[in-house]
Amino acid sequence: MTTAIAQPGVGLDAFFKAEGIAVVGASDDINKIGGRPVHLLRKYGYAGPIYPVNPRAGEIQGLTAYASVRDLPTAPDMAVLAVPAGATAEALRDCAARGVKAVVVLSSGFAEAGPEGVAMQDELVEIARTAGIRLLGPNCLGTISVVDGAIGSFSIVLEENMPPLGQVGIVSQSGNIGSYMVQNVALRRLGVSRFIATGNEADVDVADGIAAMAQDPHTRVILCCMETCRSAERLITALDLARANGKPVIVLKIGATESGQAAAASHTGALAGSDAVIDAVFRRHGALRVRSVEELLDVGHAASQLLPGRLPAGKRLTVVAASGGFGIMMADAASNAGFTLPPLSEPTKAVIRETVPTAGTENPVDASAQMSSRPDILFKMLSALMEEPNTDATLLFLSLSLHNSRLRGIYLDALAQIRAAHPERLLVIAAAGPADAVAEIVALGIPVFPSIDSAVGGLDGLARLGALRSAGSVARAEIASETLDPAAFRNEYNAKQALGAAGIAVLPEAVATSADEAAELAGRFGFPVVLKIVSEDIAHKTEIGGVVLNLGDAEAVRAAHDRILANAAARAPGARIDGVLVTPMAGKGAELIMGISRDPVFGPVAMVGIGGIYAEVLQDVQVQTAPVSETEALAMIRSLRMFPVLDGARGLARADVSAAAQTLARLSEFAVRHAGQVAEIDLNPVLVRAEGEGVVALDALLIPVAPAA
Amino acid sequence: MTTAIAQPGVGLDAFFKAEGIAVVGASDDINKIGGRPVHLLRKYGYAGPIYPVNPRAGEIQGLTAYASVRDLPTAPDMAVLAVPAGATAEALRDCAARGVKAVVVLSSGFAEAGPEGVAMQDELVEIARTAGIRLLGPNCLGTISVVDGAIGSFSIVLEENMPPLGQVGIVSQSGNIGSYMVQNVALRRLGVSRFIATGNEADVDVADGIAAMAQDPHTRVILCCMETCRSAERLITALDLARANGKPVIVLKIGATESGQAAAASHTGALAGSDAVIDAVFRRHGALRVRSVEELLDVGHAASQLLPGRLPAGKRLTVVAASGGFGIMMADAASNAGFTLPPLSEPTKAVIRETVPTAGTENPVDASAQMSSRPDILFKMLSALMEEPNTDATLLFLSLSLHNSRLRGIYLDALAQIRAAHPERLLVIAAAGPADAVAEIVALGIPVFPSIDSAVGGLDGLARLGALRSAGSVARAEIASETLDPAAFRNEYNAKQALGAAGIAVLPEAVATSADEAAELAGRFGFPVVLKIVSEDIAHKTEIGGVVLNLGDAEAVRAAHDRILANAAARAPGARIDGVLVTPMAGKGAELIMGISRDPVFGPVAMVGIGGIYAEVLQDVQVQTAPVSETEALAMIRSLRMFPVLDGARGLARADVSAAAQTLARLSEFAVRHAGQVAEIDLNPVLVRAEGEGVVALDALLIPVAPAA
Repeated sequence: MTTAIAQPGVGLDAFFKAEGIAVVGASDDINKIGGRPVHLLRKYGYAGPIYPVNPRAGEIQGLTAYASVRDLPTAPDMAVLAVPAGATAEALRDCAARGVKAVVVLSSGFAEAGPEGVAMQDELVEIARTAGIRLLGPNCLGTISVVDGAIGSFSIVLEENMPPLGQVGIVSQSGNIGSYMVQNVALRRLGVSRFIATGNEADVDVADGIAAMAQDPHTRVILCCMETCRSAERLITALDLARANGKPVIVLKIGATESGQAAAASHTGALAGSDAVIDAVFRRHGALRVRSVEELLDVGHAASQLLPGRLPAGKRLTVVAASGGFGIMMADAASNAGFTLPPLSEPTKAVIRETVPTAGTENPVDASAQMSSRPDILFKMLSALMEEPNTDATLLFLSLSLHNSRLRGIYLDALAQIRAAHPERLLVIAAAGPADAVAEIVALGIPVFPSIDSAVGGLDGLARLGALRSAGSVARAEIASETLDPAAFRNEYNAKQALGAAGIAVLPEAVATSADEAAELAGRFGFPVVLKIVSEDIAHKTEIGGVVLNLGDAEAVRAAHDRILANAAARAPGARIDGVLVTPMAGKGAELIMGISRDPVFGPVAMVGIGGIYAEVLQDVQVQTAPVSETEALAMIRSLRMFPVLDGARGLARADVSAAAQTLARLSEFAVRHAGQVAEIDLNPVLVRAEGEGVVALDALLIPVAPAA
Repeated sequence: MTTAIAQPGVGLDAFFKAEGIAVVGASDDINKIGGRPVHLLRKYGYAGPIYPVNPRAGEIQGLTAYASVRDLPTAPDMAVLAVPAGATAEALRDCAARGVKAVVVLSSGFAEAGPEGVAMQDELVEIARTAGIRLLGPNCLGTISVVDGAIGSFSIVLEENMPPLGQVGIVSQSGNIGSYMVQNVALRRLGVSRFIATGNEADVDVADGIAAMAQDPHTRVILCCMETCRSAERLITALDLARANGKPVIVLKIGATESGQAAAASHTGALAGSDAVIDAVFRRHGALRVRSVEELLDVGHAASQLLPGRLPAGKRLTVVAASGGFGIMMADAASNAGFTLPPLSEPTKAVIRETVPTAGTENPVDASAQMSSRPDILFKMLSALMEEPNTDATLLFLSLSLHNSRLRGIYLDALAQIRAAHPERLLVIAAAGPADAVAEIVALGIPVFPSIDSAVGGLDGLARLGALRSAGSVARAEIASETLDPAAFRNEYNAKQALGAAGIAVLPEAVATSADEAAELAGRFGFPVVLKIVSEDIAHKTEIGGVVLNLGDAEAVRAAHDRILANAAARAPGARIDGVLVTPMAGKGAELIMGISRDPVFGPVAMVGIGGIYAEVLQDVQVQTAPVSETEALAMIRSLRMFPVLDGARGLARADVSAAAQTLARLSEFAVRHAGQVAEIDLNPVLVRAEGEGVVALDALLIPVAPAA
């Protein structure tokens, strides 16, 4: 009996808080993969029983060794397997038999190595699921629980020291990148709670790691590097758990995959890259996506030193340095990152004038060297800046000051007072070493960054995390699956009828099967009208002369009808013709493109972009997994770079963006309701009329899911 | 007699290679501004005579002191003035009398301190010019010549050590930022040739510093931080000199000033910010502009270790690391910065398979830990990657490897061989310390960066420098000044006539003074036509109902003529009316906006942008100082983000961009020819027809220079 995959995070305590650890394939050689875990557990004083397992039994690294896990005197929570790939299944069965709860497979040679490895990996999963074992790896770097001293890893970061204990949790698919993160967190004088590297992710994945850390009282901030998302639902559950528990999740997603895009049949499919989709998912579920390991560390550093729940409300800074040039440099960096530097209030200016008469009173504050002449002066001046109303943080640049022993003393003294006096205000420092002085300031709970850029990057990350707090909290209705009449896929007219029935505005229109009928319909709808060929075999109607605009009377309609049919016969011979669509001219308005594409992991994805050539040239589109609420849809439209065109820029009429948002929301619900049948949708263009006058989809293309092979 | 300002760089040897240095205001207290230079010159073994000058004479810091510079036994090349602002002029006169060639004024209290300081500073300039003295400062941090040991500074970077000798020249207006640059160059294990901080720039400015370093055989790369450009001509001369001498100039321009923009009367003036102008000037004259001090250091680091003249030809990389995750991370960072990672050639793949069977053979190369098992393996594999044809550089990530003593030995051994075997190929390493191992690799001539991002940033800077080598080398004709008939400023018609005479295509058009004349003109030009009000008092013609489009016959023209006059009388009463302009309809095409604005430092600036609302919303414009050549104009148009719209994107006709470029070039020449009279020009829109069919300016606005007050 195979049990269902566990909720993310369930059962991971058996790794992190393991009572008893077996190392299978243990060796006396501490440089071997099977020797290192035993060595490291002993070196860093793991408190529970350590069981080396090796067929030769006897003694390993001074500990009693056992021939099999089956022989162990107690059932260890965790076993670490460091045996060849071919011997792993057997070892795992032994673990199952002995009641082990969690198994790390360090060995490689599985799914990453080809079809034979895939089969071996599948076997491991089968054994583990049957036994209720959580399986980490294979081909992974395992776990390090700094809190508990439980190690199931041979990471190079353990070479000299256990990472310092702290509140940063690290989750990485790649073991090397995970180790690099641990090392750099330590170099920044922060500490780590727990580390997990998931490798091939046969069972335990990044979502498990995030969920476990989200529920771990020792972890305040979760840093994550992921390559592949294997389950949308598990990732979302884990991210939501972290947000609910107030733990910022900062994610570096590497190797943006373009699969699923190559085959896109619609305009939407080509524009909605899978990287943009995961971006949108992170945003909706409150995780901050970063672009480099440095940014991960910058934001992680800032977030880990924040009082819980104290993310900044906005991007308003006071900036101070001992020189005007540095102040300008910081102001440039901050405004490039979207921060504002509000003018100082009169009381703050008065404090500056009183304490440091040589200082400037503009923001950025050129505080002059006098600022650091005495701790009490520095304290008074910084306090005034930190208390400045209507600002969110203070940025202080120390340049080389900490290298001067007199200044170092003054700064450390004043900063300790500052932290005590203003525990809730955000102060961030940029200083170029030395390392020990930086460590002392970090120990006060004040983030110190190696450069102005990284300090601004850290602050920017906090501000973005702040903005994400409430994102995606809009409730989305459960949408029941429904069957769509397959006729909807036949042509533009049918597609529009189906969408119209789902509440998406389309024009009154009909298919004529004769010139006279076309003229009659035109008279009913009102002139001028548009005529378009209707055929499931003609995708690009304009190119074959299948569209005629702006027909002003019955005579013109009749002539156009016949011309369109003649063109189709000449340029698309053999196409099945359903008739000629008669539609009134739509009038003026702005144009959007809306659509649905299908992500291999996240399913139907809603897209909106500015219409016409601009969507294509500027890639000015926004995506989100369906369904999107009207509120979310509105935010997507407002995030378009060309949004000012809809918002009354340069004397244009303000467009009906709330109707556009409603249409996008309904389109996304339609896609979810018919997810089993609809692969892609293009509404191109959607005409957005002036405020209050609504929108109308002028063309529609529905692409069905390909029948299963 | 006041001499003219020297060519940039002339006379700066008297600072850098000073034979004899006087310190005026010298003190025994080595922490005082007047005590430090004496102390530092002695500490770092300056070889020439050091003359402390102080009214009390006697002995200072063990050296004979003199009451006045006039009393010195020999004339020192340089004097460093550290006396109060009020006493500086007198000290400078003493220097003039004794034949001093170069004077550093460290003291503050001059132009930066208010009108009284401005007057004192002007006096210094007058004294210096009369005596032929080069004056540095006041309010500056002076000079450090590491090559010669000549110091005219009290910079904190000299506290413990002289900066290491090397080939990086540092020019900074701000002394603090300059010192920070020196410190960071040293931290990166590079060396400095000379340092100059120009402060208030009463005489010697950043252009002088660049020009001097450009001619200095000890300097290979020039790093510059500037705040204000005081003279376009001097800056350009200095940059051209550096380019001619093959010295890369990398500039951090801080405090983007928005002056000159606030007052802009034209659309062009509002769009062509002064920051964009200086950007364009740097680009044209081969200097690389960077956005942060870290980027300055990254590119400076990479450039200083390049063989002279060996800038990369393009952005094609081979990327290698001991783990797949790192490879993907590097590939992400590289492709975000516009690099490509070409597939490896078969011979390279063969070498990889032979030397490291566990490695991947895709680019980025997952070389596995086997890569670093022996120096000869590493050498063979890296050699193959560096010799890969059709690539420009190799990027190697060492992560934490140098922290392992065995790996460190292997890397250092192999890298020394690599550098010897491939002196001309570019190899860049990212490694997270330790500092001493990094220093050893840098000493081999291989740049080592602290992170993947900074390594990619350094490479990107080199590639951009490579691309700038040939920029702006297009000859621009000398354009003689000419007088423009002031009538050109009167109205749209006159402006177009003047521009038409300068070779800018306009439509045939004329001003009618009666309805009948309008109809007659329309008949002559051919229907349909446009009618527009002509009045120097009406700037926004459309808003008052002063424009009617698409008039198809004489009757419509007559009616429109009368309606326009009625509208003008009603909505712009009192406006002086010159008549009604009759113009044929222009037909279809893409729209550009072109124009001229005036930069306070760089003079007339040509601008081109995509037409309509998009220029405004996207700020999609390019600028360059006038005149621009046709080649430059074409490059500007091609650099527009929306250029694909002109270039046949999505089935649109390809537009006549060469005619557009010619128009922009002619407009820029027109602006230079009449620079004394023309302040701003808008051609909005310029209709760009299909390839071969030319362009036409549909509207024109000429704004005259305001009369001198």
